[in-house]
Parts: sequence; C-alpha cells; structure tokens
Amino acid sequence: MYPSKVKIVEVGPRDGLQNEKSLIALADKVALVEALADAGLSMVETGSFVSPKWVPQMADSAQVFAAIRRKSDVTYSALTPNLKGFEAAMEAGADEVAIFGAASESFSQKNINCSIAESLARFEPVMEAAQRAGKRVRGYVSCVLGCPYEGEISAHKVAEVTRALLDMGCYEVSLGDTIGVGTPLKTQQMLEIVARTVSVDKLAVHFHDTYGQALANILVALQQGVSVIDSAVAGLGGCPYAKGASGNVATEDVIYMLSGMGIDTGVDLNKLVKAGNAITASLGRPTQSKVARAMTGT
Amino acid sequence: MYPSKVKIVEVGPRDGLQNEKSLIALADKVALVEALADAGLSMVETGSFVSPKWVPQMADSAQVFAAIRRKSDVTYSALTPNLKGFEAAMEAGADEVAIFGAASESFSQKNINCSIAESLARFEPVMEAAQRAGKRVRGYVSCVLGCPYEGEISAHKVAEVTRALLDMGCYEVSLGDTIGVGTPLKTQQMLEIVARTVSVDKLAVHFHDTYGQALANILVALQQGVSVIDSAVAGLGGCPYAKGASGNVATEDVIYMLSGMGIDTGVDLNKLVKAGNAITASLGRPTQSKVARAMTGT
Repeated sequence: MYPSKVKIVEVGPRDGLQNEKSLIALADKVALVEALADAGLSMVETGSFVSPKWVPQMADSAQVFAAIRRKSDVTYSALTPNLKGFEAAMEAGADEVAIFGAASESFSQKNINCSIAESLARFEPVMEAAQRAGKRVRGYVSCVLGCPYEGEISAHKVAEVTRALLDMGCYEVSLGDTIGVGTPLKTQQMLEIVARTVSVDKLAVHFHDTYGQALANILVALQQGVSVIDSAVAGLGGCPYAKGASGNVATEDVIYMLSGMGIDTGVDLNKLVKAGNAITASLGRPTQSKVARAMTGT
Repeated sequence: MYPSKVKIVEVGPRDGLQNEKSLIALADKVALVEALADAGLSMVETGSFVSPKWVPQMADSAQVFAAIRRKSDVTYSALTPNLKGFEAAMEAGADEVAIFGAASESFSQKNINCSIAESLARFEPVMEAAQRAGKRVRGYVSCVLGCPYEGEISAHKVAEVTRALLDMGCYEVSLGDTIGVGTPLKTQQMLEIVARTVSVDKLAVHFHDTYGQALANILVALQQGVSVIDSAVAGLGGCPYAKGASGNVATEDVIYMLSGMGIDTGVDLNKLVKAGNAITASLGRPTQSKVARAMTGT
C-alpha cells in the first residue's frame, strides 16, 4: 500500500531561500548544502540561474556550486528558466536542471509574463541543450491545487502540462501546491486524474505548508503511489503570493512521518535537524519544523 | 470513503489551558468558551474539577461554568477524576463529564498514582452517580501511540482499556496520542486493532501536534471510519511530558482540512480564527494554528 522507499528532493537552498529579503552569506549557503548532503539527502536543489534582478538571493548560485565540497552519490541540481540559465548552470557544474510550467494561465502571465504554451515553447532550447550535454531535466508544475489569481485549477490542466513536460523529455514532474491551499481529497482527486495521463512513477509532489495541510496531502500522495517528495529543511521558504509565514513542508517533519511508517529515505534525522537549526540561526528566526522544535526542546 | 459529517470536540479551554503556568483571568476563559460556541462548535470542554493543587489553572472552573452565556445546542463538558469532582461539576452545571484512563501502566502510575485497573475501579462511583443524574460520560485513553516512560504501547492494551470504559457506560472513548509521537501507519494499525473489539462509531481521536503529524493521523482516522475529532483552538496546550512547544492539534487547521474535503462540521472558520487569536493575544504568544496565521497574515 505504501512505498518501501521514498526519495526526498531537498529544495531548501533554492525554493527555501529564494524569497529571503536580506542577503544570505555565501558561506551559510555552502554550509547548508553540505550539511544536507551529509545528512543523507541524495538530491539537493542547490541554486537557480535566473536574472538576479528578479531573484537577487540566487545571484551567487555559481559561487555556491563552485564552493561546495561534493559527495559523489548526491545530485546537485539547479533551476534554469532559459538557455542562458542552462549554460550558466552547466558552467557552474550543476548535475541536472529543472524547468517550470504553471497549471494556471494567470499565474504564468504574472509570474513569467507569457502563456503556459509559450513558457513550454521557451523550454525547448533548454531541453535540446540538456540532451546534447547528457543532463537530466526535471519539470515543475505550479499552482496544481489552486492559484492566487484564478482560485480553483482544473486537474485536467495539471495533467496536460505534466504530460507536455514529460513529452518534452523531463524524466520526472513535480506537482506543486504553490500557495499551500490544497487539502487531502483534492490532492487525491488531482493525482487520480493526472495518473490517467502519465505514469505515477514519473510524479513527485511539492507542498507548501501555509495552511498546515502538507503532511496530510503527502500521505494521500503516498497512498496514490507517489514516492518522490520535495521538501525544505526547517520549512524554509514562503510564497510571496500567499499570506502567512509558512513555506515549504519541513523535511524533518516528512522524514519523521516516513520513518515512523517504516519507509526508508536514507536520511539521518539528527543530522538533518542540526542542518536546519544552523540555517535558521543564521537567518535569525525560528525553525518551521515541529520535529526540530520537539527534538531540540525549543 | 470519508464521513460526510464530523463532530469536533473543542478541548482548548480545558486540555489547552490546563498547562499554562501564568494564571489566566476568568473573563478571558469565559470569553473563549463563548466565542467557541458562537463559532458553531457543538461541544466545548469547558473546565476540569480536579484538585487545584495539581492543576491550579482549572481552580476556577465552577466560576467559568457560572459565568458563561450558554447556547442551548452546545454541550459544555467537564473533566472529573473522581466522585468529588463529579459532584462539583454537577453543582456547576456541566452538561456532561469525562473520565480518563491510560493505555500505559507507567503513565498511569506517574500521572494518577495508581494502576490502570485501579484507575478504572475509581471511576465506578462516578459512572453510577452520572447514571443516576442522567448525565453522559465520555472516556479518554491516553498514550495510545506511545508513552514518555515506556515508549511503544500495545494496541491490544488500548483496545482493552477502551472496551473497559465503554463497558462501564461511557458513550464514547477518545483515543489520545498524549505526547504526539504517532505517525499515520501506526495510527491506522492501532485503530484497526481497537475496532476489532469495539464499534468504530464509539471512537474519537485526540492528537497532539508535537511532531507535526496530527492532521495526517486524523486523515487516517477518518479513513478508518472515525468521525469525532478532539482539537484545541489555536493549538493551545502542551504536554509537560514531551519536549517542544506544540500542544493539541489546532481546531482551525482541522476545520480547514475537513472543509476542503467537503466534510460538514458546522463551524464558522472566520469566527473560530478570531476566537483563537483573542486567547493567544491574552496569553501573549503566537497562535500555533497555521490556518490562523495564513488567514490573518501574521
């Protein structure tokens, strides 16, 4: 019924930190990525090669890639919105890259100034370059359970964009509840519809915990056969389009749940909690992980 | 698959506030109980008739009962550990009472200084008096998914104590993960075993969110057919036996999940959030409800 193993895609250094307003020191970012890899995470989204005008926090991603001490069994990935970003990611030594589409036309327009179809077309050169370079490409779909502008999003639209990203050559697509509004039954219904179009083993889920629903939604995703979960240590991140301070679901809380269910992730929870507590100390704010708070008595 | 209606038992004024160290003003307690009833909660655990030496925060429960403006369709209940407490609760006008047993021998010994069997025997006079008075009695079982002293707890022991409480005349038994260590698969397995011995429609679940697992565990309980959920507005409470600051699962977060699943609770989420924000403002601390934080942009 539940998968025996789950792969965690740690997005803290990228999706988690990208919305931080005060610039984080390069050394803190490097220490975070290294600590996450040391904790046993096999995939760490390390940075983003986007315009520093739009995401100033990610302006030093090349330096992060250059500075990290790498582990051979860890994939260090980068978000690349276009060919220029892809080339910079390759130069920096990213192991693989990610591209992103939205399931909401309004969100696509407001977030990246083009339609969903146009956004997918823009990724074609990235896909071609990645194929030539022998690099894998992961896809993201945002707003799969709701949009800050449109409200409800059709699961058929999610399925369509997911299918398009896989057809373009993505090896996996991560379905993101960008504003954290999803609840378990909607998650289940959305996944059932998407799984009619694509194989469930090509899917990952990516929940924000804005309304505290992330673990319940992840549980439903596991019941639907999904075995890849995106999360951010300490619950880093926050969506500028949603009220409240909550960011990504905390990796510590996901690992605690999976571990309690006998599901193997390869992650050392004690080391992970230390990694999360270190970065939140640097940021000068409390961790969003309840497990981290309980384990450290704070 | 999921129940169409769920009854929420609001335990904030009792289980939530009882561990607060600084004494809360009577007026704040009264305002909380009234606001919860106004939000549509049909059952509010309003106080506890225990020795003020052990639980000083509940010393004014009779005054709370005397002061509240009551709604006719709301049940105002009280925790009563013994006959003296029961009589005081009746004098105060409690609509129904609750008694509690543990699924852990060590917890029973340390918490109420007697064995589980002795604790159940002590409740016999309360049950008899309640029957004479025509009052319903609810049972609690604590430590159903783990004990701070013993660690793992046998689900068969949980089933045995639950059965004993029902046999004594309790109309419902609430299964409590007192230290919040439970995870979904263990919750499922425990409920499956308990449901072999008692009818699932006699069961409620009571989760603490110490490790962030409460909503996922509640989801599993719903899947197992449970349709009564204990929770505390603003996630009030905290267990003195567990590290970390987390208390009961926040009622706001439960309502958001159920509402998103089309499950009727009769609760007005906006009013509920206001009730929770008012009491946490009085306590001078942030709400533990992610929904409340998201809805008020804090």
